Amino acid sequence: MRGPGRGRGREMVSMHDAYMERAIELALRGGKYVRPNPMVGAVLVKNGRIIGEGWHRKYGGAHAEVEAIRDAGADARDATLYVTLEPCNHHGKTPPCTGAIIEAGISEVVIGTPDPNPDVVGGGMARLERQGIRATVGILGDRCAKLLQVFTVNSLENRPFIQLKLAQTLDGCIALSDGSSKWITGAPARQRVHEMRAFTDAILVGAGTVRTDDPMLNVRDADGESPRRIVISNSLDIPSSSNILTDEDAGSTIIVYPESLSDDNPDRIERLKNSAASLMGIAAPPKTGEFLHTALESLFKIGIYHIMVEGGSATLSSFVQAGLFDRIDCFIAPKIFGGGLRSFKAAEALFGLGENWLSFEEPEMIGEDILLTLYPKQGN
Amino acid sequence: MRGPGRGRGREMVSMHDAYMERAIELALRGGKYVRPNPMVGAVLVKNGRIIGEGWHRKYGGAHAEVEAIRDAGADARDATLYVTLEPCNHHGKTPPCTGAIIEAGISEVVIGTPDPNPDVVGGGMARLERQGIRATVGILGDRCAKLLQVFTVNSLENRPFIQLKLAQTLDGCIALSDGSSKWITGAPARQRVHEMRAFTDAILVGAGTVRTDDPMLNVRDADGESPRRIVISNSLDIPSSSNILTDEDAGSTIIVYPESLSDDNPDRIERLKNSAASLMGIAAPPKTGEFLHTALESLFKIGIYHIMVEGGSATLSSFVQAGLFDRIDCFIAPKIFGGGLRSFKAAEALFGLGENWLSFEEPEMIGEDILLTLYPKQGN
Repeated sequence: MRGPGRGRGREMVSMHDAYMERAIELALRGGKYVRPNPMVGAVLVKNGRIIGEGWHRKYGGAHAEVEAIRDAGADARDATLYVTLEPCNHHGKTPPCTGAIIEAGISEVVIGTPDPNPDVVGGGMARLERQGIRATVGILGDRCAKLLQVFTVNSLENRPFIQLKLAQTLDGCIALSDGSSKWITGAPARQRVHEMRAFTDAILVGAGTVRTDDPMLNVRDADGESPRRIVISNSLDIPSSSNILTDEDAGSTIIVYPESLSDDNPDRIERLKNSAASLMGIAAPPKTGEFLHTALESLFKIGIYHIMVEGGSATLSSFVQAGLFDRIDCFIAPKIFGGGLRSFKAAEALFGLGENWLSFEEPEMIGEDILLTLYPKQGN
Repeated sequence: MRGPGRGRGREMVSMHDAYMERAIELALRGGKYVRPNPMVGAVLVKNGRIIGEGWHRKYGGAHAEVEAIRDAGADARDATLYVTLEPCNHHGKTPPCTGAIIEAGISEVVIGTPDPNPDVVGGGMARLERQGIRATVGILGDRCAKLLQVFTVNSLENRPFIQLKLAQTLDGCIALSDGSSKWITGAPARQRVHEMRAFTDAILVGAGTVRTDDPMLNVRDADGESPRRIVISNSLDIPSSSNILTDEDAGSTIIVYPESLSDDNPDRIERLKNSAASLMGIAAPPKTGEFLHTALESLFKIGIYHIMVEGGSATLSSFVQAGLFDRIDCFIAPKIFGGGLRSFKAAEALFGLGENWLSFEEPEMIGEDILLTLYPKQGN
C-alpha cells in the first residue's frame, strides 16, 4: 500500500514541475533582449500559491530573482523560490542574487539548471546552503538548460551562437538545377522560419545567395524585429540593386570580406562603401575556418550574439566543416527531386561514417513538412 | 452543466475506442499469413465485458467475426461486435460473415472502416441494418484502414503492395563515393528494417546492389520468416558466388530480367539456370515503367503480395518514376556527408516543385535515427 508520505512526495514533484514550467514561460519573455545575458525566469510560492513572478527583461536590468522578490514584497519571507538558473553569487551589472534571496528571508530555492560556467558553477548554491536555505537543482533541467543555449556559447566561446537553417526535399535538394526552389516547404514552415529570424541578432548568407535569389532576409510572417543581415563575400560581387543594399533596412546590412581583396578591387569596395551597408574586412585567408573564426569574433564584438545561417549550401557546409555551429534546423518537404542543387557540399573526409557527431531532437510536423533539429554531440 | 446523458455518451466513445484498439491488436496477429486477404480483428462485448475474440489467422481460414462468435459460444446473443473491417456479405472461401452475425443474434455492430472495394462497400452494413442490427462505422477508422494497406492495393490494382525503404544521411546520401555505407544508421533502425522484412513476401533490389554489397537480404535481427529475394537485372551480370545465389535460401531467389536478353546472353542465362534461383523473363523493354508493371503482375500471380524495395538508388527511383509505390520508409541518420552516392537519382521533370504529391506520417525516433514514412497523396 502507498502511504500518505509517499503520495505527498509525488505531489511535490509534480508541483515542482508546474512552478518551474511557469518560470520557463516567464524566462522566454526576455527573448533576445537579454543578450549577452541568459533568459531566466523566477516564481515565488508560499502556502501553495504564487506570490511573485519575475524574469530578466533586458540586458543591464534586474535579474529574474530580484524581479520576483520585488513583485512579492514583504510576503517573500519564508517563501520558496523557483528559478530556471542557479542564482549568481558575483557582482556583475547588478549585485549578486544570492544576497537578495538571503535578505528577503526566502526559505527554499528550487533551481532548474546549474550555472554553465565551470568557474562559478555551484557557488550560488553553496552560498545559499551556508545560510541554511535548502537548495534543489535539476527540476526540468534539460528544458532550463535549453534556455541558456545562446548564453553558454557566448560566454564560454566568446563568439555568436550559430544556428544553421535549411529547407530541403527528402533527398537533400534545396533547388532544381535551374535554381528554382521558392516553394519547397509550405506556409507554416516558412512562418516558423520568420519566428526563428525574429529571435536572432543576424541572418547570414553567402554572396552567391544574394546574386541568385536577391532575398530580403527580414521578418515578415511573424511578430518581432528584423535582425541584421550579414553577407560573406569573397569577391565583393554584390549587385548594387540587391534588396539588402537598397531596402529600408539596408543600414543594418554587414558585408564581410577578406581584407586582402582591398588592393584588387578598389572600385567594388568604393561602390559598397557608398551604399547604406557596413563593410567588415577580415584579416584571414578566404574560404578557411580561420576566416570564419575571425569574422565571428569581430561580429561578436559589435553585439551579434545569435546568427542564423540560411545558405547557400557552400556557406552552410563551410560552417559545418569549421565545426562552427551549435544547432541545425532542417525542414524537410514531402518531395523528391531526384537531382538538383544539394543542401550540403563539402570534402567528404570531414564528415564521414562511424560514430554520430550529431544528435536529433524529437522531430516535429509543421504543416505538411517536418522539422528536424540537430545538435552537435557533447565533446564533438 | 454537463448532463448525465452527455457524460455517458463520452464514456461510450472511449469504450468504443478501447474495444476497437483490442480488435486492431488481434488483427495484427494475422500478419502476412492472411494474404491476399486483409488482416481483420473482432471483439464481442456484453455487459461491459469481452466475451469473445477472434482474428483472421490464415488465408482460407475463418474470418475474424466467425472466430469471435465461436469463441463466445451461445453467449454471443445480444452482444455487441467490434470489428476492424465492414463484415463481408458475399461468398468467398467462406460463407458471408453477415449471415453468421445475424444467426448468432448479435444486437449491434461497431465497424472500424468500410470495405475498400467500391463494388461491395456498404453491402455488409446494409444487410445488417435490414435485420434491425444497429451498425456504426468509423471508430479508429484511420488505423483500421491502415491494416488494409496491402489488401487494398492487391485487390484494387492486382499487383503487390510496394514499400520503398532506404537509409540515408540528413543530406540524402546513402554511401560515400567509394561505396562504403555499412553503418549509416544504428542498430535499433537496422532491427526495425528486419521487422519490416519479416512482414513482407519479398525484398527487391537491383543487380548493382548485389554486385556492390553482396547482401543477404534475410531476417536476422527480428523474429519471423525470411521473405523471398527478387533481383532485377538488365544484363544478368550477377556473380555466381553471390549470397543470394548460394546461401541456404537460394531457392527463394527470383531473378527478373528482360526476356529479350535471352538471345544475347545464352551463357549467363545457362549459368543462372544452374543455380538454385528461379528466372523470370519479362516481355517488355528494360528500364521502363512498362517493364516494372509487367514484372509486378507476374510476381503477383505467383503469390507475392508485398514487396519491400531496398535499393539501390536507380532501382528506388525507377519505382518512383513509374508511380509504382505505396509507401516510403526513409531512415535518416544524424550525419552529413556533404557528397557521395545519393538516395534518389532521376530525371527531375518527373518530381519537381509545386503541389506535394507525398504526405508524411508522424515521424518517429528510432535509437539515434529518425524514421520518416511517406504515402502518395490520394489521387496522385
